[in-house]
Amino acid sequence: MNVSHTALTPLAFLERSARVWPDKTAIVHGDTRVGYAEFAARTTRVARALRASGVGPGDRVAYLMPNVPELLVAHFAVPLAEGVLVAINTRLSGEEIAYICAHSAARLLVVDEALLGSVTAMPAGAADGLQIVVAGDGERPPGAITYDELTARGTDEPLPWTVEDETAPISINYTSGTTGRPKGVIYTHRGAYLNSFGEIVHSAHDRNSVYLWTLPMFHCNGWCTPWAVTGIGGTHVCLREVRGDAIWRLIREHGVTHLNGAPTVLTTIMNAPEAAPLDRPITVTTAGAPPSPTTIGGMERLGFAIVHVYGLTETYGPYSVCEPQPGWPDLDPAERATRLARQGVGMLQAETMRVVDENMNDVPADGATMGEIVMRGNNVMAGYHDDPEGTAQAFRGGWFHSGDLGVLHPDGYVELRDRAKDVIVSGGENISTIEVEQAIMSHPAVLEVSVVGVPDEKWGERPKAFVIRKEGAEVTGEALIEHVQAKIARYKAPREVEFLDALPKTSTGKIQKFALREREWTHKDTRIQG
Amino acid sequence: MNVSHTALTPLAFLERSARVWPDKTAIVHGDTRVGYAEFAARTTRVARALRASGVGPGDRVAYLMPNVPELLVAHFAVPLAEGVLVAINTRLSGEEIAYICAHSAARLLVVDEALLGSVTAMPAGAADGLQIVVAGDGERPPGAITYDELTARGTDEPLPWTVEDETAPISINYTSGTTGRPKGVIYTHRGAYLNSFGEIVHSAHDRNSVYLWTLPMFHCNGWCTPWAVTGIGGTHVCLREVRGDAIWRLIREHGVTHLNGAPTVLTTIMNAPEAAPLDRPITVTTAGAPPSPTTIGGMERLGFAIVHVYGLTETYGPYSVCEPQPGWPDLDPAERATRLARQGVGMLQAETMRVVDENMNDVPADGATMGEIVMRGNNVMAGYHDDPEGTAQAFRGGWFHSGDLGVLHPDGYVELRDRAKDVIVSGGENISTIEVEQAIMSHPAVLEVSVVGVPDEKWGERPKAFVIRKEGAEVTGEALIEHVQAKIARYKAPREVEFLDALPKTSTGKIQKFALREREWTHKDTRIQG
Repeated sequence: MNVSHTALTPLAFLERSARVWPDKTAIVHGDTRVGYAEFAARTTRVARALRASGVGPGDRVAYLMPNVPELLVAHFAVPLAEGVLVAINTRLSGEEIAYICAHSAARLLVVDEALLGSVTAMPAGAADGLQIVVAGDGERPPGAITYDELTARGTDEPLPWTVEDETAPISINYTSGTTGRPKGVIYTHRGAYLNSFGEIVHSAHDRNSVYLWTLPMFHCNGWCTPWAVTGIGGTHVCLREVRGDAIWRLIREHGVTHLNGAPTVLTTIMNAPEAAPLDRPITVTTAGAPPSPTTIGGMERLGFAIVHVYGLTETYGPYSVCEPQPGWPDLDPAERATRLARQGVGMLQAETMRVVDENMNDVPADGATMGEIVMRGNNVMAGYHDDPEGTAQAFRGGWFHSGDLGVLHPDGYVELRDRAKDVIVSGGENISTIEVEQAIMSHPAVLEVSVVGVPDEKWGERPKAFVIRKEGAEVTGEALIEHVQAKIARYKAPREVEFLDALPKTSTGKIQKFALREREWTHKDTRIQG
Repeated sequence: MNVSHTALTPLAFLERSARVWPDKTAIVHGDTRVGYAEFAARTTRVARALRASGVGPGDRVAYLMPNVPELLVAHFAVPLAEGVLVAINTRLSGEEIAYICAHSAARLLVVDEALLGSVTAMPAGAADGLQIVVAGDGERPPGAITYDELTARGTDEPLPWTVEDETAPISINYTSGTTGRPKGVIYTHRGAYLNSFGEIVHSAHDRNSVYLWTLPMFHCNGWCTPWAVTGIGGTHVCLREVRGDAIWRLIREHGVTHLNGAPTVLTTIMNAPEAAPLDRPITVTTAGAPPSPTTIGGMERLGFAIVHVYGLTETYGPYSVCEPQPGWPDLDPAERATRLARQGVGMLQAETMRVVDENMNDVPADGATMGEIVMRGNNVMAGYHDDPEGTAQAFRGGWFHSGDLGVLHPDGYVELRDRAKDVIVSGGENISTIEVEQAIMSHPAVLEVSVVGVPDEKWGERPKAFVIRKEGAEVTGEALIEHVQAKIARYKAPREVEFLDALPKTSTGKIQKFALREREWTHKDTRIQG
């Protein structure tokens, strides 16, 4: 019995595509074209080079790179060497990078020359025992070697594209925690394999997929897309910077069919001067924050098909998907967009997504009672690296606690209401900042918005809105507040609106509410009227 | 670590679809429409009824039914009751059915009234200890109960849509072996789950799939399609008989998007009087025999998109797929159809498909050297039920031996040349009957053909063709032989052609070569000239 089971691993995806599509373009970057056979050959060479550099089973290898081919290769080469990939957020400081390298006990840190400044900014001694590898031709720190020198240590001798234990780690993704030290989220070969199938199914990838890398690969390992698009035999289009002009140029040059990104990336695309209706639809899978109905509507008018998913670093990126129901195309556009902005239901490879109270009881499916979103199963992490207490705390009751608050609608769809730490408690009432933000976004003059709770003598907290206006658009704070009061309960409307030129964001485009909130709470005496 | 893994099982697919698409039509049969919530409710009720009838963990439950909703329900209800489904070939004799029930130690046999004759034909005593359940209103044998009486034993109390052990059996499929006793091929929950994803990806199913049940569900559990289409939330269109008129009517009534079937099913569709170009493409996934270039070309002209897959009962149905290469659309139609007729490469969820000599060495990738096709991994069976010796023999060298002979082309694609037992050895040369058949099929007067080896004093064997002409078409045996000699090596051409009205076939549409061969070898003195 069971004589024939094979351990699940995404390594099998590249092995297969190199065999089936040796000459097909796997990677596009600038003028560079890499076929699938070459992709696999580079992977083998790097894996052999890592072995020759002392990387053994389970050893961590850190990468600090934008979305370039070397990082795509690393997603296969590090596990092929039996190592564990630690892809680091490119916006972190030298101190944070040093912490992650030390905590993960990385043996090598492979860095793109454009990010070398972050590495040389590491505290003295942080690089002791850490082999720095610089991709690029410029200067390099003492003791560092070049990427070419690294690969020269390798050979073309094949390594098996298999693993003994499918539950072994394939990568560790450090969360960009807004408080406390980042935590190392462990992904397994099995999880990465199964979630790749989920991405293929829900984003409707096929062998003709041309995938534009607008989502950082270091972020939840790009929602498993490095593995998924390679498995299906599609083409990866790399890019260093997520700018509107570059995105539209690459869409037109390469016939892009799919891209992923946070709603702010969608806003960038929609509002770029180059934006124009598409000749054929592009599937955009979005997550990171609930896309506003305004964004969904605008993208669809350009011809983008929106797939809305939800998840966290701890869930390999997407865990749930807002499955469109058969009746939705007949709804009026605003109502349909409201439905599409829900976080939905567990993906095909996932378990149910629950919304629970503090005793792990499901909240009523009334679309109103808030509870915490909890998840478990094959697309939830194996745990936090070297942190059994943090892992036990996150999995209390047998389910991973997201820290996100949501409601369950009567149709079983979950709607995110807020991060637990973002919700505004005003006069004993919970106010969802997302609900207020969506009301503000529906005003035609608004480009972006963030709402946070600010101190209030009487109510404890009250909502305040930070708004970026569209270029050339005019609107006052009073007009916006009136607009909101006409759409949602009056007590939820902000009493203040502040206009800014930019919002503080993480590298993945998430707005850093803590930064806005911190300022308001630190300087209680400073009140800025909109 | 690994706190969050969930055992893989297709039960999760119905649980999810009932939750996400409760009112969506899951099953169409005649005037009957079953929504997903109702599909799950029926499944729970039957599972509870099986429990109440004494079915415990690992117990077998046999079904003898055409493609009706009750059999679809059984694919979930039996495993939900922790039982193992034994779906029996509807064309078997009473004696064969009795053997399978006894060998699998089935506790119940659920039979469609249309097939009751096969059950009453079982040898005396075969039904002792076997609860017969008859679906339908007609007569029933003593001791039998009706399907309604069975379900009345059930309740609506939920059972968990989960399993403890993903490597536990979900079904046993008895091979329709042409020699010896049928063998019970064990499928696992894990295998059924992973292969369902493979079917979804390679047949390009999505939530709008309308799947017509032209492939018997009892055959390799319908290539995992009962589970796959349910998972994706598509609609199953059931039908009792695979007739051209019924297929075309259902295609038009229900907007069918997908169907599966052997090449003979494709021939039936193509040559039906109702055939006409489609308004929108239908994906036809075909296997069971290599489709001839003629069939592929004819179906494509009607607007069908052909996906050619290959496998056996022991591989959950399809194991390999003929992935179309980027350059193929530019080939001339005949050359392209020849490429599409190859068995191709392992599917995304599969391992490599190898072609090996008797020492398990890979044959050269020269498109000429024949070897045996071997397979392993998650879409190969767990073993033969209650047959450790047969299992060990099939898996010698760690790979499942298909008994099929093929060649490996320089591009890594496998092409099936023959069943080991079908190949013709003539004067020391191997002749692939498939190659001869495809040459004959390319003649416009030919509807169907089968070639077998017949005794020859001088050469040992020589090829003989059995041919069915298209209605109203005229061609002589001599003309056909000349046609073949112009296309392939002369020594491969048949020396005799016999025209028949019908070919002997299995219930899945495979031509029973053994029946043709047997007649020739038994009556050596009878020579029929074409």
